[in-house]
Order: sequence, then C-alpha cells, then structure tokens
Amino acid sequence: MLKQFKSFFRIITQKPYIPDRQKAHALITTILNRRSCRAFSGEDINDEDFNLILEAGRYAPSTANLQTWSFITFTSDEWKENFDRSIPFNGARAIVICADTYRNKQLLTEFSRTPFVSNTLAVFNAGIAAMNMNITAECLGIRSIMLSDTGMTGLLDFSYLREHLLLPQGVIPITTLVLGRSNETSSIAPPRLSRDSVVMKNSYRACPREELEEWFDRMKVGFKLLYPFSDLSSKIAYYQGKMETAEGELVHLFKKEKEND
Amino acid sequence: MLKQFKSFFRIITQKPYIPDRQKAHALITTILNRRSCRAFSGEDINDEDFNLILEAGRYAPSTANLQTWSFITFTSDEWKENFDRSIPFNGARAIVICADTYRNKQLLTEFSRTPFVSNTLAVFNAGIAAMNMNITAECLGIRSIMLSDTGMTGLLDFSYLREHLLLPQGVIPITTLVLGRSNETSSIAPPRLSRDSVVMKNSYRACPREELEEWFDRMKVGFKLLYPFSDLSSKIAYYQGKMETAEGELVHLFKKEKEND
Repeated sequence: MLKQFKSFFRIITQKPYIPDRQKAHALITTILNRRSCRAFSGEDINDEDFNLILEAGRYAPSTANLQTWSFITFTSDEWKENFDRSIPFNGARAIVICADTYRNKQLLTEFSRTPFVSNTLAVFNAGIAAMNMNITAECLGIRSIMLSDTGMTGLLDFSYLREHLLLPQGVIPITTLVLGRSNETSSIAPPRLSRDSVVMKNSYRACPREELEEWFDRMKVGFKLLYPFSDLSSKIAYYQGKMETAEGELVHLFKKEKEND
Repeated sequence: MLKQFKSFFRIITQKPYIPDRQKAHALITTILNRRSCRAFSGEDINDEDFNLILEAGRYAPSTANLQTWSFITFTSDEWKENFDRSIPFNGARAIVICADTYRNKQLLTEFSRTPFVSNTLAVFNAGIAAMNMNITAECLGIRSIMLSDTGMTGLLDFSYLREHLLLPQGVIPITTLVLGRSNETSSIAPPRLSRDSVVMKNSYRACPREELEEWFDRMKVGFKLLYPFSDLSSKIAYYQGKMETAEGELVHLFKKEKEND
C-alpha cells in the first residue's frame, strides 16, 4: 500500500525537466508537454490543417532520403464505411502509418536481398514521420494519439489491415494516428523510466532491476488510474496473444519474400 | 539533358506547402523547413540544451508506454576517444539511438517469444523519440543530422557498434543523431516523392512507375549537387554491400534469440 502510494505520488508529480529560461519557449513547451488524447470532441478538423500534417510527414527526414512510408487517410465517415465503426476515441481523422519497402523495390530491386535490414530502416523512418505529424498537429492545436492496439489499428492486426487496406507485400501497417479536437485538459504523463535508465554515457549501461521494478509499479498504478476496471497484467496477456499471432504472420511473410528473391 | 534540367529545376523550386495563414507560425515553419545539416561549426552546445534534447526523447510517446529506446551520448572528446576520429561533419555532440527490447525483457519475459514483433515496435518507437529530439534541437537553434552510414554510425554497422558500445542482445543501434551549431544557411530539401505517391485515401495505391522514375531522376541530380565527385548508383552499390553484411548478422541474432527461448 505504501509502495502504491509512492508510485501514485511520483506519477502525479512527474514532469519533464524544462530549464527556467526555456519555460516561455512556446515550441519547447509544446513538445515537452504533448500528451496523447483519449477523448476527442468529435468536431472535425479542416482539410487545410489535415493536409499540413501530412505534409510534415512527407517532409520528414529518412535514411538516404528513401521516404519508406505510406500514409493512408480517413475521415470519420470513410473510417466508418471501411471498418464498420467509429474512429477510436471519437477522433475526427485517422492516418494509418505504414512502413513501405514495396515502393522502392520497384526501382531498386537489390533491396529485396536484405528484407530484414530494409524493413528495420523503413519502420524507423515511419516512426520519424509519425512524430513529425504528431508534433505538427499539436502545433495547430489538434490533439492526437498513436494507436497500436485499440481495435484493429496497428501492427498487432497485421493480417486484418493488410486485407482491408489492400497492402502489397512489403507494406507493414504500424500504427494509426488519430487526430481531432478535444476539451480534455492535459492529463498526467504515463510513467517514464528514470533518466539514468535510458540515457547512457559512452556505452550501454544495463538498468538495475530495482529501478525497472519501481517503474513497473508506477506503470501498474498509472494503468489503474486510466482504466479503473482493468489491470496491467491482463492487458499484457491480451497483448501477448496478439503479438504471437502477428509474429507468425510476419515471419511467414519474410520467409516468403526471401524465397521469392 | 532536358530531363536533367527538369529535375534540377524541380529540386530548386521544391518547397513544402504551408498555407498562408500558417506562414507566421514559428513552430510550423520550424518543423516544415527543418533540414539535415552536413557542416557544423565545431562550436559546442551547452549541457542544459543537450539535456533538454534528451528529455524530449525520454518524454516521446511509445507503444503501450514501453519506452523501448536507449540513448548513448558523446561529447566530441568522448567520441574521439571511443572511435579514434571526430564526430562526422564536425558535430559537437552525438547520440547513438538504439531500439531496446533488452530492458523490458528483464521484467516481461513473455516478450522474448515474439522477437520480430517486439523489435519492430521498438524500432518504430526509437524513430518517434529520434524525431522528438531532432525537432527539439531545431527549436533551440541547434542543427542536426541523423546518420545511417557515414562512418560506423548506424544499423549498417551493427556488429561494430554492438562491440564498441557493449550492447546486450536485444539492443539494436539504428542511427547517430549528430548535433551542433552551424552557419550553413538552410539548404534545398532532398527530392521528395510526390504527395500522391505517399498519401493515399482509404486503401493502398501503388505509385505508377513513371512517377517513381521521375523522383529517382531527381534523386540522381540531387546527389550530384551534394557530392559532385560521386554518383548515386555507386553509393547504392556501397550501401547494398553493407546491408547484406548487416542482414546476415541480424538474422543470425534473431535466430539465436528464438533458440534461447
């Protein structure tokens, strides 16, 4: 109980460290105080803003400028028509962000010989583009969330999305960026690992187990605050099942790709 | 020749589309006009700024808040000591950005059963964190570049970095974010694929071959502008060799991980 109280206290007091002289810097506070949104108002966003967000994705940097991404867009009506339900959390627009090695392979056939490396770089670049879109939305006063699991929206629903979005071999859906307006005031940040656990000087330093456990205690308490009627371990078990299915599908696909070479 | 002139003209006139009413928006223009820097002044950046950039990485969003990244930091002296040469392009600081599935596996052993999916999500999250750091630097007036290949700095030098940074199994170095000051005026953007090639409505749309070829013509001309004494096809051949080596190493590692399970 004391442990849970400590976790709770640390969760509600946790804040990114922003030096005093940067506290009035609008860009810095926008980036550091960005939070995922789980309650959109349903109000639409305009095409001009939506296109500007996509433009930020298109102009993101990428390995050797190969732009190994594809963005599949939906209005709320289009999402409903395609998926028979609303955009999660009542979002106004959605972008399925895919890592795309298919496009370049049409020209640069040599990349087929290294599916694993090509795909790893493509996934990394897709993450870069995703964050550039996310921050751009934030700058426009549009809130967002990147979904990995909430109802057929990410890598864990690989086969479903591949079929529904007609993805060719080499295009892997990773996440859905949901965008919209919200009246939600900025919520507390999900528990971050301590700085020493992720920032290392000159070489890798394994995170001591007690630090990891302390963080995981905060994760459990944080999860309860977000979903009072569920708990983190059953969520993880659910995740794990979906991960195993996706693992089988992806490994199968990579094998096939290697054989086709 | 006419084709090359057309490519050249399109390269120098290419600009992200920013609507008029957003042109005075400092955050938006910072994001959309960000360019990688290949000529740093050598002037150091202060620890406060460097730490704020790392804080942006730490506070980036991630799949299920699992924070599957590690940031290994270097000053220019530390880099020299560790790698026997300067930070590429005379950068002041460097951060080797790794996808990290090792840390969480200490607690959540079930994730070992799905190395491919776990790793894909970790790599995506590392991309998210990388871009959050990149943009934060930009907001502080610090220029940057994410290196994939320039001298032992990314995934293509997997084995070398694993040994030099003492990376445990499950930690994959993806890129080095180089940071510094620069007097370079914003250069032209590397040729982007057309909007229709990467943004799709409701389902995947394969990019017509002529669109791809037109982009690749621009890539060739753009490469010549950046490196007059080299050409894109020899660069790609060089890349390909490194990719094949890295592919072998990575696939071997994943097999071992699967067997250890």
